[in-house]
Amino acid sequence: MAAEIVNPRNDSGTEGAPEEPFDPVFALHRGGKMAVQATVPVRNKDDLSLAYTPGVAKVCTAIAEQPELVNDYTWKSQVVAVVTDGTAVLGLGDIGPEASLPVMEGKAILFKQFGGVDAVPIALATTDTDEIVETVVRLAPSFGGVNLEDISAPRCFEIERKLQERLDIPVFHDDQHGTAIVTLAALRNAAKLTGRTLGDLRAVISGAGAAGVAIAKFLLEAGLGDVAVADRKGIVSRDREDLNPVKRELAELTNKAGLTGSLETALAGADVFIGVSGGTVPEAAVASMAPNAFVFAMANPNPEVHPDVAHKYAAVVATGRSDYPNQINNVLAFPGIFAGALQVRASRITEGMKIAAANAIADVVGEQLAADCVIPSPFDERVAPAVAAAVAAAARAEGIARR
Amino acid sequence: MAAEIVNPRNDSGTEGAPEEPFDPVFALHRGGKMAVQATVPVRNKDDLSLAYTPGVAKVCTAIAEQPELVNDYTWKSQVVAVVTDGTAVLGLGDIGPEASLPVMEGKAILFKQFGGVDAVPIALATTDTDEIVETVVRLAPSFGGVNLEDISAPRCFEIERKLQERLDIPVFHDDQHGTAIVTLAALRNAAKLTGRTLGDLRAVISGAGAAGVAIAKFLLEAGLGDVAVADRKGIVSRDREDLNPVKRELAELTNKAGLTGSLETALAGADVFIGVSGGTVPEAAVASMAPNAFVFAMANPNPEVHPDVAHKYAAVVATGRSDYPNQINNVLAFPGIFAGALQVRASRITEGMKIAAANAIADVVGEQLAADCVIPSPFDERVAPAVAAAVAAAARAEGIARR
Repeated sequence: MAAEIVNPRNDSGTEGAPEEPFDPVFALHRGGKMAVQATVPVRNKDDLSLAYTPGVAKVCTAIAEQPELVNDYTWKSQVVAVVTDGTAVLGLGDIGPEASLPVMEGKAILFKQFGGVDAVPIALATTDTDEIVETVVRLAPSFGGVNLEDISAPRCFEIERKLQERLDIPVFHDDQHGTAIVTLAALRNAAKLTGRTLGDLRAVISGAGAAGVAIAKFLLEAGLGDVAVADRKGIVSRDREDLNPVKRELAELTNKAGLTGSLETALAGADVFIGVSGGTVPEAAVASMAPNAFVFAMANPNPEVHPDVAHKYAAVVATGRSDYPNQINNVLAFPGIFAGALQVRASRITEGMKIAAANAIADVVGEQLAADCVIPSPFDERVAPAVAAAVAAAARAEGIARR
Repeated sequence: MAAEIVNPRNDSGTEGAPEEPFDPVFALHRGGKMAVQATVPVRNKDDLSLAYTPGVAKVCTAIAEQPELVNDYTWKSQVVAVVTDGTAVLGLGDIGPEASLPVMEGKAILFKQFGGVDAVPIALATTDTDEIVETVVRLAPSFGGVNLEDISAPRCFEIERKLQERLDIPVFHDDQHGTAIVTLAALRNAAKLTGRTLGDLRAVISGAGAAGVAIAKFLLEAGLGDVAVADRKGIVSRDREDLNPVKRELAELTNKAGLTGSLETALAGADVFIGVSGGTVPEAAVASMAPNAFVFAMANPNPEVHPDVAHKYAAVVATGRSDYPNQINNVLAFPGIFAGALQVRASRITEGMKIAAANAIADVVGEQLAADCVIPSPFDERVAPAVAAAVAAAARAEGIARR
């Protein structure tokens, strides 16, 4: 009966909208990319009296008396809010909440397809840090987790931290941690392939936004020898006086070597380049890296170093693109991470859980390990279950699992 | 009491929950009643490049340039937020957001099953009027409509009014208007059956909460002869000095006859009793009503007047229960109303659209009209499409359709 009423896909579009020539992207997006479905029948009086009134009152009363039962008897513990304010969407920047929705829907269906996790796009009509925090806190009773997405730096750091302090469900800014986790997975396998340990490696990150900051901290956490981060003004170092609080903290944590100056300076003799900037790196700088270097040029659609150039000097090359080998794609991480965290009702996602996720992703490669295969395909169906299991086990080991 | 019957399956429940005998309500609710599904494939690289990066960027850019395209290329224009603060849930009262979630999920799946409308439960962790308004305003970019649910009076009136002022999408408090619309539909058919017009009828409403206030205003709008409302202290009349602003307005609008005193006083000679109070009405008061009276005793699970008693005096009897004829059930209204409003992208739901919905529901009864059939079954598949079509046509006629 439902389909007879509205079928936006077959209806005409917004009046006055330009008639664009057939474009498969727009054709696919018409009517959106997701829907809600009932998982219980509501066909007759008996169904209704179980799923709705009067039966449902018993479930409400039980939850009122024992609040954690909300996780057993509603979809709360299996649904994630994908929250954005539309300020840092893809490479498009601050395009606002409505224009960000296609990305949030895309994210939501990836959660479902890869991790079996339900997800709801929530694009907010505010960019104020405190308002975003308050809003998400008020939404939290309805959700088992919060995936922050495409919120610009440095606001994203404060928003995530405050939400983590105030909520007892996982809050995870994917642009930070998803990218960091998949990068670590690739790096671990690249090191293995070339007979080195993480501690042997000195990495240089181009970009001090959400991803750059999170990757730097996470790689140090994982045991990398040294990490330096460069923003548009050069290497983040203690002597710089133009740093915001986030970069000042970074200056304390990173760059043990005390490098100053340009990105190119830092790359001389470095083992790893990690690009999350959207800039470009001169070929000479790539050539100046150490033997058996790794170049992870992750800017999309234009990598900081073209893979053909990178291959002239590097032992392992990775990008963010699907048309080259070794794609660093967050979809390898977030569906399994939330699936695992929700499965055991973890109250948060810890460093240990993130490390476990990275290791699980790396381990899936197994015997296939090669220069053009340091990371599994985003469509490798073994990945999400392996990540979920590793994350759940880590949460249990840390004592933050609630079942 | 309810906590004793939880956890019918002891394999995966919350730790510490008691093991109890099988209960079909809890069994059905385990894991919740709804899920999200992708409506486009994401099986391989090509799919991903259309539904997600890089393809999605084109859609984002188009929406950024022409914001109304968000309705064509995302699910926004077909998804409703079902928003509550958990303060007036069923007959259970203020049980909080988590405990209200089973009802909101139930509502969401009814939206889908009956109206083809996607809906997302949003139970808020605040009961502050302004905070609720601000929160929903911030959520609005992601939704095509807002169904307010189970928010206590009189806060519900202010919240709805402020949201309607600030948003350009339909905002509809179902406890008010859904009930009023279905009541009017039943009343129209009951009048037809007994050869009267709405203008011939004097109605008495027991209950001055969300439903009572909305029914009173709506029946007057529809042309009823007179309506009096009684709260716990008696008939709402201009001489009362204990009235909050909402009831004071009601005293101005209703009770043309200038009745004072008890509900029983008002019922003497009245044509219609409408119960939305949960109280009880003495049989003598029912007996004092005019000949061919209508008794709509809608309290659940215990009608204000037992149907067997009502039938002794009344020509038409209706209840809120599914096990008696003439069930006044909101599911006859809200799915079709939102389906129709969303279909034409109406900016709000007007009195005219609500009247059109009531007429459409009444008209579905057609030839079957009888004392035990003044309203269609909630499972009559003709209802939602008829309501949607009538609401869409009314929106177009009023010039508030945006396509």
